[in-house]
Amino acid sequence: MNWLDLVTAVAIAQYIWFGVLVGQARGRYGVHAPAVTGHETFERYYRVQMNTLELLVPLVPAMYLAARYWSPVWVAAAGAVYVVGRFIYLRAYVADPKTRALGYSLSALPVLGLLVAVVAGVFMAA
Amino acid sequence: MNWLDLVTAVAIAQYIWFGVLVGQARGRYGVHAPAVTGHETFERYYRVQMNTLELLVPLVPAMYLAARYWSPVWVAAAGAVYVVGRFIYLRAYVADPKTRALGYSLSALPVLGLLVAVVAGVFMAA
Amino acid sequence: MNWLDLVTAVAIAQYIWFGVLVGQARGRYGVHAPAVTGHETFERYYRVQMNTLELLVPLVPAMYLAARYWSPVWVAAAGAVYVVGRFIYLRAYVADPKTRALGYSLSALPVLGLLVAVVAGVFMAA
Repeated sequence: MNWLDLVTAVAIAQYIWFGVLVGQARGRYGVHAPAVTGHETFERYYRVQMNTLELLVPLVPAMYLAARYWSPVWVAAAGAVYVVGRFIYLRAYVADPKTRALGYSLSALPVLGLLVAVVAGVFMAA
Repeated sequence: MNWLDLVTAVAIAQYIWFGVLVGQARGRYGVHAPAVTGHETFERYYRVQMNTLELLVPLVPAMYLAARYWSPVWVAAAGAVYVVGRFIYLRAYVADPKTRALGYSLSALPVLGLLVAVVAGVFMAA
Repeated sequence: MNWLDLVTAVAIAQYIWFGVLVGQARGRYGVHAPAVTGHETFERYYRVQMNTLELLVPLVPAMYLAARYWSPVWVAAAGAVYVVGRFIYLRAYVADPKTRALGYSLSALPVLGLLVAVVAGVFMAA
């Protein structure tokens, strides 16, 4: 089983699902395109999607670069922690943005750890 | 001909072009950085660019992961549909955001299809 | 030394650092989530991060696709120019958004050049 490809596909699918939630929130709270403000709950869903985009962009290359130097299974495990963290982030942020720290940390730390792993791998292989 | 690399380069170039249109709209409609609101037409161009960013981020890894399991030419064809869909999306969204559904679907469905192809490929290869 | 992987990791780390600056600006200027407006200086940091996201998304695939056809060391050098350009962009944009052109050009031109290199490489290899 290629866990690395599978976790990456799940992380991307989760992000697309967050985008679907934003689309549903547009209808439910009457925020019509191109506006992205106007209702607090809509804005929370929108910020969750944007923040997830902001983390998914570094996550994917960090995973595949780390997998050049380290075990792909461990890299996939870091990606799985990110996915769980993002799910917690969604739940917490929509309930109350002030409670987003745990989910944020759980999903941001794997990205930082993978980046450190890439740099360490580059220097160890040099 | 490496159609996969070519279509990916075209999709990225299209996205950069959408960014140039946003820059031009800043000047034409007098929306000065860091503002991203203030004129409806500017906001439409800006949302087209952002929404394209939101789809390009999953598209590129989905294409290259799918090409590990399926024919790269078919993957490139899915990417070409995405590019055509984005062009229709631009035209429709700037004219009237309410008409964006066709272009959106044409560009979002290839991303979803590629993701399903990746997951199916991972399980079939397991 | 794999300069390509190293420069990519540095470009991603720089982008994450820009995100940390946005988080700090939230606190310093009292802009609470999910708001992304309300204080001019906060908005500048936020736009720097977003604009960097907008360029990092095409940069990473453009680097690795270009490296399939051209010397990875030259590709890494283009990436290094991008990183320097982004740093100048941050400094200039926060001081005065009107002065952002130099840093913007220095970081956007490598992305365009890499894209041209990919397309040229695809056709030369065909």
